[in-house]
Amino acid sequence: MDTTKKTLILFSGDFDKAMAAFIIANGAAASGDDVTIFFTFWGLNVVRKREKVKVGGKSFLQNMFGSMMPRGHDRVGLSKMNFAGMGAPLMKKLMRQQNAMSLEALIDSAREQGVRFVVCTLSMDLLGFKKEEMLDGMEYEGVTSYLGTADEANINLFI
Amino acid sequence: MDTTKKTLILFSGDFDKAMAAFIIANGAAASGDDVTIFFTFWGLNVVRKREKVKVGGKSFLQNMFGSMMPRGHDRVGLSKMNFAGMGAPLMKKLMRQQNAMSLEALIDSAREQGVRFVVCTLSMDLLGFKKEEMLDGMEYEGVTSYLGTADEANINLFI
Amino acid sequence: MDTTKKTLILFSGDFDKAMAAFIIANGAAASGDDVTIFFTFWGLNVVRKREKVKVGGKSFLQNMFGSMMPRGHDRVGLSKMNFAGMGAPLMKKLMRQQNAMSLEALIDSAREQGVRFVVCTLSMDLLGFKKEEMLDGMEYEGVTSYLGTADEANINLFI
Repeated sequence: MDTTKKTLILFSGDFDKAMAAFIIANGAAASGDDVTIFFTFWGLNVVRKREKVKVGGKSFLQNMFGSMMPRGHDRVGLSKMNFAGMGAPLMKKLMRQQNAMSLEALIDSAREQGVRFVVCTLSMDLLGFKKEEMLDGMEYEGVTSYLGTADEANINLFI
Repeated sequence: MDTTKKTLILFSGDFDKAMAAFIIANGAAASGDDVTIFFTFWGLNVVRKREKVKVGGKSFLQNMFGSMMPRGHDRVGLSKMNFAGMGAPLMKKLMRQQNAMSLEALIDSAREQGVRFVVCTLSMDLLGFKKEEMLDGMEYEGVTSYLGTADEANINLFI
Repeated sequence: MDTTKKTLILFSGDFDKAMAAFIIANGAAASGDDVTIFFTFWGLNVVRKREKVKVGGKSFLQNMFGSMMPRGHDRVGLSKMNFAGMGAPLMKKLMRQQNAMSLEALIDSAREQGVRFVVCTLSMDLLGFKKEEMLDGMEYEGVTSYLGTADEANINLFI
């Protein structure tokens, strides 16, 4: 075990939980830790490209889930007080007023600091997402890879 | 501490989070790890028997909560996009189309691989559930047991 | 690392998840462990004072979020089966009937046992909460403090 390694599973696709994950990831990376974020299930929404990418080979249900799940960090909602979609824009406005780092800036900062972004291949296969639909620079691995990385880390959170 | 031990608290009764827990549990067990899942609060729904079990000694409120909480892994819903109950069936259909393991198969596989299923006695007592209402082969323990097991493990997640 | 230290991040402001956090915290503290709870985001609701505290220096949006977020552990709702606010009162009634410790008693017990209550300063600044609005005896720290404490602990959960 190594106290300089951390893993986060981002299962949630909520704006507020993604914020929490990236604040922790950036904080740890700033102290020189190796941080890996595993994006799984709804967490995939956070690393989807904003624009619609035309890809084939999806089933009807995969297309349906794909079109109903938000595309990218800019479109995900709050886990509480979402006010029919108004919660996240209000929260973002509040963040701008307080000069807080945006989720986009936190994601960029994490990448610059070398945080590894790993997308769960099982979720990809199930939901039919293709790599072209995800942000560039993602890695694609399964649960065995997660366990191997987490075994070497001293903080492992499920968010 | 032992890098071959893992604990998961399954607090959530959501289908998608139960899937995540059992995928991690099976993955770790397949590598030879000792895995313990603690079912607490809504997580109890996942290990309830599907059929209604007639038991006495429940208060009015316990009966009410018991009858409104889903019975078993086949009836729990999605944490997001549940579509008034249609989300989980659609997700299960998608899983069948993609030949993904069902939650039931993951539960069976976890048991075959020796994953320990521990039901939180405090939640049982509060909600008035009886052992007859739970799947066979459960263990029944409290928070002290959880902490003792987690102290020996190197990955401990709250799901 | 030290098997006598535990940290919990309470991100959720839900009654049931706060119960889970304080049951684990009290259990660990009763065995002599050093426990720290970090209250972040919606978790701040759990340690807000029940009475309205008049403080200045808030923006319109901060006042709006502040007035819509529940004040204190007695007003937070259930994460599931909240029944338009009726879920938590019913759950509390059930807890009284079963002689289970109330959330308030668990919070008091945690404080008596020396559990550290740390409020996330970043969440405070964003939402515009002032220390006068929080329960007495809180500590106020940021993510770096969390990581330092978690690095020394052997169980770290995100709730």
